Amino acid sequence: MTWPITWDDVLAARVRIAPYVERTPLRSYAALDAAIGARVLVKHENHLPTNAFKARNALSFMTALPADQRARGVVAATRGNHGAGLAWAGAALGVPVVICVPLGNNPEKNEAIRGHGAELVESGRDYDEAVEVAQRLVRERGLVLAHSTNDANVIAGAATLSAELCEQVEGPLHAIVVAVGGGSQAVGALVATRKLRPDVEVYGVQAAGASAIHDSWHAKSRTTIERANTFADGLATRATYDMTWPALAEGLAGFVTVTEAELAGAVRLILRATHNLAEGAGAAGVAGALKLRAQLAGKTVAVILSGSNIDAATLERVLRLEL
Amino acid sequence: MTWPITWDDVLAARVRIAPYVERTPLRSYAALDAAIGARVLVKHENHLPTNAFKARNALSFMTALPADQRARGVVAATRGNHGAGLAWAGAALGVPVVICVPLGNNPEKNEAIRGHGAELVESGRDYDEAVEVAQRLVRERGLVLAHSTNDANVIAGAATLSAELCEQVEGPLHAIVVAVGGGSQAVGALVATRKLRPDVEVYGVQAAGASAIHDSWHAKSRTTIERANTFADGLATRATYDMTWPALAEGLAGFVTVTEAELAGAVRLILRATHNLAEGAGAAGVAGALKLRAQLAGKTVAVILSGSNIDAATLERVLRLEL
Repeated sequence: MTWPITWDDVLAARVRIAPYVERTPLRSYAALDAAIGARVLVKHENHLPTNAFKARNALSFMTALPADQRARGVVAATRGNHGAGLAWAGAALGVPVVICVPLGNNPEKNEAIRGHGAELVESGRDYDEAVEVAQRLVRERGLVLAHSTNDANVIAGAATLSAELCEQVEGPLHAIVVAVGGGSQAVGALVATRKLRPDVEVYGVQAAGASAIHDSWHAKSRTTIERANTFADGLATRATYDMTWPALAEGLAGFVTVTEAELAGAVRLILRATHNLAEGAGAAGVAGALKLRAQLAGKTVAVILSGSNIDAATLERVLRLEL
Repeated sequence: MTWPITWDDVLAARVRIAPYVERTPLRSYAALDAAIGARVLVKHENHLPTNAFKARNALSFMTALPADQRARGVVAATRGNHGAGLAWAGAALGVPVVICVPLGNNPEKNEAIRGHGAELVESGRDYDEAVEVAQRLVRERGLVLAHSTNDANVIAGAATLSAELCEQVEGPLHAIVVAVGGGSQAVGALVATRKLRPDVEVYGVQAAGASAIHDSWHAKSRTTIERANTFADGLATRATYDMTWPALAEGLAGFVTVTEAELAGAVRLILRATHNLAEGAGAAGVAGALKLRAQLAGKTVAVILSGSNIDAATLERVLRLEL
């Protein structure tokens, strides 16, 4: 198995980010246990600044930069939580941040990114064109490109959440069900459990409309899809990633997809059972655990409420059963 | 001014509850600042166990009981967060808890209370009859009655949140806008600011459909109303309370009411600007700050996101502009 990071990388990331983020709670809810038929532990990454685990990834990335690169600043192409995480981390550390989004990007997300003092560049027709803009800024302004997944410090940042989780569980833990967008969270969970709880099985979940990594895992061969089609924008990827693919291919105990209706149902279940807000990707762990209920019956399973940045219009559709 | 608690009571409560609850974040959001026209700091009591500040009140109450009373157990009549707080605190401390709710109480709330291992007694046609049931259990089973407001340790528990808040603010703080149900939060804010930030003005907010304390404050005379009519069940009180009324009467800098539409608008604003869930009472601080925007313009104002226990059906009505 090819590991993009070591346990020492996780420990180093923990030390770097500790001054800026507190440990997030791990909680259980009777109504969630009843719905899934297992003891379900929820890791509340929605409590982090920016309401998403990406704050860890961004902090881990930025605190690892040498002083001269921090002074020049960081750029990224993104439409969501990666950008907000970088903008927030930049404000916390005094690092200039430029976020490139395509024209027509969600205004709530743009406002959150600008709210943290980042420079927002709205250019390009889609995400791929925003990436080109970011790459041009690297050349022209000497900014450091922050990739959302293909970066060892980003993955180590995501691993800190699973390290916390492994330590917070009292008694046995049998499984973790993890949403896979680029795979940083899932690879982080594999690295952390291998060290701290080697018997834990880590399962992956993707949206059926954005199942490139799931399909690749089952085919044992990297494939891409033409278009990602899901309301869970944190899951809307179209390909495997060089730094996460090998570990996912060999480490995951299983990999399932969930439909849009199942994701929306999980958002509603989390709302009703925990009274927390979840975005689509944040509810994917619960949706996956429901899919895996036969395997998980009676066991103790952790899920990561990875983010709550759902916009009001999407939430209304979710509540009206239109998703 | 008659103070139901001293600053020393607050310090003692902090020490008692510290092993069980972590400090909640105080955060700002550019979109909220823009909407209110002030620098707005949000105290995230929705991050506490049970998603509500009542966890502090219950813990403060229960940790102050002598050992023999803890062994006998605690009883309360409630329909919401007070009961969940007691049930959770009882589980944390190993204290038996009995919660009396009227027949037909919200099933999501009943499930949350039972989920923490409390005994749920469903009896009586309304809240007042549930209170009679609780009083009978005090006589018959020797349980200790936990009042939601008229208790010095409950108020000291609520004061710990404002004490934290006063310490967390960097730079000046001009005002705190506080929802008033029974008044524990508001009196807590008065006690904490008097000690830590004596220049801060504390404003009260009630629902226009449950305005007994607001009306009493303006009339300088205690009045009651026949029926509390608001979707914000945490605000649905019909009278002043002996232990909070005198301090509210003399300490508040102002007192406003907000309509159901204004409360619902504040839930939506919090959702859009912060991507946090708020129940009606949890959004009342923001609704009040919007009402007070002329007085607060350009200042730094804190609001307390006191709870997120809104049920899915109510949330859907809020999002559909039906409230």
